[in-house]
Amino acid sequence: MKTTFKDSELREFTRNTFLAMGCSPSHADLATDVLISADLRGIDSHGVARLSGYVRLWEAGRINPAPDIKIVHETLSTAVVDGDAGLGLVVAPRAMEIAIEKAKKVGSGWVSVKNSNHFGIAGYHTLMAVEQEMVGIAMTNASPLVAPTFATERMLGTNPIAVAIPTHDQPPFVADLATTTAANGKLEILQRTGAEAPEGWVQTQEGNKSVDPNELKKGGALLPLGGDRTHGSHKGYALGSIVDIFSAVFSGANYGPWAPPFVSFLPLPEDPVGEGLGHFLGAMRIDAFRPADEFKNHMDNWIARFRSTAPIDEQQRVLIPGDPEREMEAVRRKSGIPLNTNVVSDLMEIEKKLGVKLG
Amino acid sequence: MKTTFKDSELREFTRNTFLAMGCSPSHADLATDVLISADLRGIDSHGVARLSGYVRLWEAGRINPAPDIKIVHETLSTAVVDGDAGLGLVVAPRAMEIAIEKAKKVGSGWVSVKNSNHFGIAGYHTLMAVEQEMVGIAMTNASPLVAPTFATERMLGTNPIAVAIPTHDQPPFVADLATTTAANGKLEILQRTGAEAPEGWVQTQEGNKSVDPNELKKGGALLPLGGDRTHGSHKGYALGSIVDIFSAVFSGANYGPWAPPFVSFLPLPEDPVGEGLGHFLGAMRIDAFRPADEFKNHMDNWIARFRSTAPIDEQQRVLIPGDPEREMEAVRRKSGIPLNTNVVSDLMEIEKKLGVKLG
Repeated sequence: MKTTFKDSELREFTRNTFLAMGCSPSHADLATDVLISADLRGIDSHGVARLSGYVRLWEAGRINPAPDIKIVHETLSTAVVDGDAGLGLVVAPRAMEIAIEKAKKVGSGWVSVKNSNHFGIAGYHTLMAVEQEMVGIAMTNASPLVAPTFATERMLGTNPIAVAIPTHDQPPFVADLATTTAANGKLEILQRTGAEAPEGWVQTQEGNKSVDPNELKKGGALLPLGGDRTHGSHKGYALGSIVDIFSAVFSGANYGPWAPPFVSFLPLPEDPVGEGLGHFLGAMRIDAFRPADEFKNHMDNWIARFRSTAPIDEQQRVLIPGDPEREMEAVRRKSGIPLNTNVVSDLMEIEKKLGVKLG
Repeated sequence: MKTTFKDSELREFTRNTFLAMGCSPSHADLATDVLISADLRGIDSHGVARLSGYVRLWEAGRINPAPDIKIVHETLSTAVVDGDAGLGLVVAPRAMEIAIEKAKKVGSGWVSVKNSNHFGIAGYHTLMAVEQEMVGIAMTNASPLVAPTFATERMLGTNPIAVAIPTHDQPPFVADLATTTAANGKLEILQRTGAEAPEGWVQTQEGNKSVDPNELKKGGALLPLGGDRTHGSHKGYALGSIVDIFSAVFSGANYGPWAPPFVSFLPLPEDPVGEGLGHFLGAMRIDAFRPADEFKNHMDNWIARFRSTAPIDEQQRVLIPGDPEREMEAVRRKSGIPLNTNVVSDLMEIEKKLGVKLG
């Protein structure tokens, strides 16, 4: 079985899949770009590994391939967007465009989104703002898998926060982090290899410590960044809550345990408190604060200084947020994207189901 | 030695101290309110315990008691404020007022501040926005005490993020968190009692694990939220970096290792990259996203649902960000504020130095 693919091969296949679902060519291009950019950057859990999930949600009637994405409430610097049950991969970039348009006019733009679905990697959307000399911010709520501090019940998603910041000669600063100790994708890697998870990543259904990477399947939960109360899990819980509220209470999406599951075999909550999943996108023009060149020169200096931080071990230098993903992208553009065999099998099922051809 | 004081006693003493430093009555009132609110809420490290530090900075000529706080750059939704070396306790509330004014006009307001000093508890400033039916956001950079992941060198402050969100019948959601595993104040408590620190709070000067709460005095460092790479310290490092950049690179303050130290006996960095310390304040009108009543009713529902989360232990229910501080405030308003004897000695020195009277 071929398991390593050129990004162009995966791009073609993904685009054809979205087209077969009924997406417009421009939507298919955009959704594809978001997914493949995750694979290129090494965030394997958010790339084509998710494609069969999107297809199943579409089959279940939970994704509208031809959404009418529109603003339902706005001020000069804010908006709420109704994603019309579209792919988050398409809805979020549109919302970021609106944030950018507002920032061009009044310095900053902030868009909360309802009635959407999983939006891929948050970092992708923030980089749209960087191209316009703006700081980009992206958040989303997600299927409830995380137990708050002191809880057994899953109430929050891995609710990521991404922030990208323009630079001059240095590559941009791109932080993109789940508000949990470890993202679900890292557990999946351990499941495949049969290795134990470090303590502080998951707990059992009863709230006990566990090192079993399969704990989620047994009713356990992911833990907020910090891991336990002594190490600041209440901070991770607070950050995940802020993401949930900005994404879903601002917009009128489902929040907390009402957030719709990504997997189509789980039923939707019976008593929704809003519509679909929520996102929050922001853009701030750097020249809304100080001359753009001045800002970018200081960011270059910030990055150079942090890169030169005295390290514990000379072999492991201090990194800047975004470094590991950039290095991975350089490698994968050249030598291709390695996929897990389960993912390849999933793609082959899509081949059969939708009559599209892989590689 | 009397060690428990009514908040009114501490308020009177603090106000007189700021007046003796040359603050205007309105500035003295405001700075006092920020400090005493920390003591009432149980954040002892940020209350009157800091007063002698402010006095010493003033004596060293690093604090201007009569600052001309002004906007030096702005758009409809953003501004940069020059704090004129004033007390952060006064500069930050003025910056939040500007953010609120902008939010009234265009939906949101974002103010980055340079040339300021320590601003007390971040949560205080966010609650100013809540009173105006807005979400409030506050961040600040601070003296470098935190080593990035893989580093021995102190590059960031404890760089807090605070977010406060309006509600209807429920008390407001108030998250206020240092982007480190534990704030410095928690180490100080352990130093007094002679207890060990949990692993993951500090490291030695060489970057080794340590449980010594005095490690900072020996050249060690605080650790970013997450503690180590396996448990997500790169996320705490990224969050602290974002706070640093929004507070200081946006505004033109000193960032990273150039942030001025709070203690007056440490020299200022010789090659400053900006002016003073930086803050970042934001306000978003809730009705800039959806009708205010609708938003607040959903926030009440959010809080009620999270409060009812299934707990691990019935005796330790799940908390909402802001709960512990509110409970502490109710107790301390009634039975007074207990101070550490070292803090009382510090206040007695201020009595002698400035001729103000305590209790």
